[in-house]
Amino acid sequence: MSLPHLLGIDLPIVQAPMAGVQGSALAAAVSQAGGLGSLPCAMLPADAVRDEVKAIRAHTDRPFNLNFFCHEMPAPDPQSERQWRAALHAYYLELGVDEASIPQGASRMPFGDAAAALLDELRPPVVSFHFGLPAPDLLARVKACGARVLSSATTVDEALWLEAHGADAVIAQGLDAGGHRGVFLTRDLSSQMGTFALVAQVARAVHVPVIAAGGIADAAGVAAALALGAQGVQVGTAYLLCPEAKTSAVHRAALAGSSARCTTLTNVFSGRPARAIVNRIVRELGPICAQAPAFPYAASAVAPLRARAESMGSGDFSPLWAGQNTSGCRELPAAEITRALAAGTQAGGAPGRG
Amino acid sequence: MSLPHLLGIDLPIVQAPMAGVQGSALAAAVSQAGGLGSLPCAMLPADAVRDEVKAIRAHTDRPFNLNFFCHEMPAPDPQSERQWRAALHAYYLELGVDEASIPQGASRMPFGDAAAALLDELRPPVVSFHFGLPAPDLLARVKACGARVLSSATTVDEALWLEAHGADAVIAQGLDAGGHRGVFLTRDLSSQMGTFALVAQVARAVHVPVIAAGGIADAAGVAAALALGAQGVQVGTAYLLCPEAKTSAVHRAALAGSSARCTTLTNVFSGRPARAIVNRIVRELGPICAQAPAFPYAASAVAPLRARAESMGSGDFSPLWAGQNTSGCRELPAAEITRALAAGTQAGGAPGRG
Repeated sequence: MSLPHLLGIDLPIVQAPMAGVQGSALAAAVSQAGGLGSLPCAMLPADAVRDEVKAIRAHTDRPFNLNFFCHEMPAPDPQSERQWRAALHAYYLELGVDEASIPQGASRMPFGDAAAALLDELRPPVVSFHFGLPAPDLLARVKACGARVLSSATTVDEALWLEAHGADAVIAQGLDAGGHRGVFLTRDLSSQMGTFALVAQVARAVHVPVIAAGGIADAAGVAAALALGAQGVQVGTAYLLCPEAKTSAVHRAALAGSSARCTTLTNVFSGRPARAIVNRIVRELGPICAQAPAFPYAASAVAPLRARAESMGSGDFSPLWAGQNTSGCRELPAAEITRALAAGTQAGGAPGRG
Repeated sequence: MSLPHLLGIDLPIVQAPMAGVQGSALAAAVSQAGGLGSLPCAMLPADAVRDEVKAIRAHTDRPFNLNFFCHEMPAPDPQSERQWRAALHAYYLELGVDEASIPQGASRMPFGDAAAALLDELRPPVVSFHFGLPAPDLLARVKACGARVLSSATTVDEALWLEAHGADAVIAQGLDAGGHRGVFLTRDLSSQMGTFALVAQVARAVHVPVIAAGGIADAAGVAAALALGAQGVQVGTAYLLCPEAKTSAVHRAALAGSSARCTTLTNVFSGRPARAIVNRIVRELGPICAQAPAFPYAASAVAPLRARAESMGSGDFSPLWAGQNTSGCRELPAAEITRALAAGTQAGGAPGRG
């Protein structure tokens, strides 16, 4: 089945779910333009998800995607959290943050029973997962509510795993991609694959449709992804300057400036490597910091530094998520970005594989 | 000027120079088929280069490329070499290698006066460099002998630097590529770019023709690279099983097997990160080993382990160079591989950039 048919969309352009920088407005605009808008739900309480889905449906009757994380949740490790706060102590002093006021605990919860019940209620057309797939009984509930299921692979082995465990389409997400990538079978950063090599091989390996992600910024990138064997693309970074995105002012400035050329994989914002523009905290503590607690526990202790710094106009402690190709970032409505990307589907077809 | 016109070739397919696994036979076959064959010269004495060029010219009258390294050569560091041998000591014992018999010193010398004089004599149509470009006076001598000059960029900044310093075309070489990549302005592994994101941005940034490299294995990959804005491609891994390549038996077996799915950047073979299939020495000492001396000094101490292990049919200590996409490896003559790749130039053109 073709990807547009599978997902009920006109254009094979998926807007990447980007927690913290977008909500229903961006998702609705992309869906209404004919692509697949995505709402990141991993950091939202159930009532907020309800409100956001209502807002999407008020704006468009087209399909949209709800994104959840399904990471394994390690037990809290108070000693590790203490070490992390010690590593951040000088910053708390510098910015006048009261350490006693910082909440313990996790910012991102994995998909579970409550989320499955919420999907039963909301019946979204598409659900995508990050970090694998939920346990079989939970996944069965998602499918029973009528949703098509997507998940991300960062290696050929992960793509084969996702296909075997029930994904309706696989997002082949290369190292070029911004933010957290969907890595789940390995933690070995040194062997992770670039989008070019990954998409070419995933498209050969699986039978479900492949959506290419990572470094795709414009129509030429879409044409290249289709030439490699993908049926569609997932694009995040190019939407970050859209008026419908909630990207912060410091993040917008970083994306528009020359610092966007230098991104890296860093664990200082969440405990898990994710691609961001290099800023002060990444330069001084990272990019990979041994003191950062396991995902998702690193986030709470950094959040107040970010808030304080941003209130003073500084992005020194903000997760400036970005992929390796920021050339598609434009201050244009999301519908225009979507249509410009879709022009890449009009290029000549790929030649036959040898 | 178009890339084929610039280089005097029919097909925009450059065979990547691969020291240690190929000589004149592969280069001549690719050139005769209409691509640009390359002879890796960094590890060859002058007389060997003369013989190889003679062999190429006996086989074809078409253009070919001589490749040299122009790394900065650090002073020998006996203490670092001692530490490295200590790290390898258990392997020497296990394989019965006499440490006293291992020569000190460097295996790869940077391009200098003698090499420039050799080019005056041999007048190759194309010369490519790895790790930047030689000093201006040396580069002027290369150009005066009539050669077109290529070099590799792994970031947009490196591409701009190469264009400003006289490269006639830039090879945009992504993280997906095998072996040593041409990194020269930074040593920060964490920020290195995938082929997809790199080619798209280099093609926008420079005015000279761009040759895409890294993860390109078949006609579909060539079509994708051209869609991203490249005028040609450089392909290495896909040629490694050709009868004209000197790829060792253990290397061929690794490329053809499932272990080829797992490559990594390792410094254990030369002192500089290069992409290879993960084998025993990489797993046990690497992928990045702090004890490895600076490039190129790590190589001499590993060479006898490799030789001994290979004599017993084992690739445990061999540099099993490979890019992240080995799906194009075929036991076919290089001319066939070249023509199959070139079929990718017949796909529809890229759409206009937005």
